[in-house]
Amino acid sequence: MDRITPGDVDAFKQAFRRLSAGVSAVTALDPDGSPVGFTATSLASLSAAPPLATFNMARKASAYRAVHEGTHVLVHILGARNRDVAIQLAGDRDQRFVGDHWEPGPGGLPLLKNVPAWMYGRIVERVAVVESALVVVEIEDGGLGEPDEALIYHERDWYSTGDPLA
Amino acid sequence: MDRITPGDVDAFKQAFRRLSAGVSAVTALDPDGSPVGFTATSLASLSAAPPLATFNMARKASAYRAVHEGTHVLVHILGARNRDVAIQLAGDRDQRFVGDHWEPGPGGLPLLKNVPAWMYGRIVERVAVVESALVVVEIEDGGLGEPDEALIYHERDWYSTGDPLA
Repeated sequence: MDRITPGDVDAFKQAFRRLSAGVSAVTALDPDGSPVGFTATSLASLSAAPPLATFNMARKASAYRAVHEGTHVLVHILGARNRDVAIQLAGDRDQRFVGDHWEPGPGGLPLLKNVPAWMYGRIVERVAVVESALVVVEIEDGGLGEPDEALIYHERDWYSTGDPLA
Repeated sequence: MDRITPGDVDAFKQAFRRLSAGVSAVTALDPDGSPVGFTATSLASLSAAPPLATFNMARKASAYRAVHEGTHVLVHILGARNRDVAIQLAGDRDQRFVGDHWEPGPGGLPLLKNVPAWMYGRIVERVAVVESALVVVEIEDGGLGEPDEALIYHERDWYSTGDPLA
């Protein structure tokens, strides 16, 4: 068995590549008024009552200023039909909002169209850890769109679910 | 489109059921020396250098005393071959460590056998939010086992990945 040691970045990354992730997108408004956002694989529910969710981000991310100084974000749960949007929001930051895949939503934040679910969250905790941050949001509004097959990121490729395990 | 309002627990849960989750397991030692643990769908990488990971848990969980008072946990990334272990660790707390699916590992903590990856993490942050907690661990040791198909929890059922999206 290969060992994972603290200095072995590759082994750590290899371990986490073995963990599938449902894909989501976080968007916000930069203090200058421009839309910012990124594709996230860390979105998770923290509690249902009150409705709380968490995600992780790098503090050098282009959207961090919006999260650090702003009050709200929009989180979107993506489906297989949103794969191209996921790729766009993981790519060149200047190109992420070029196109008609979004419109102004609650608070004027960029709302992605045609997603299975979106939620408007007030930021209630920001926990800085080294160069990253954990963010906790309390959901104040949201919508359920058309259901879709899941969008999954695994071993650096995009998947949906197969058949249920027997 | 159905609306998600703050008091609508069902709509919030429905939204998060649309987010697939890779399945992991967290184990630790209760202060009384007994093994504790649970199946988690919130494990995420926070940074690779230093190697940091996060997970969420309920503060009323049977493993919370171990996380609150202890120094380390073991996190395990599960594969499709570990589905029965995932179900066992999500079930009756008194039955979770009945069987030969684990052995004492680093620090004497319960190490699950035959997993694609495990990591021994020192707890560096515990953030209590209402009845839940976010936990940050720094990885000090770990191992990569045999690779496996992913284990995914989605819409309250167990899946692996299908074919890559074209």
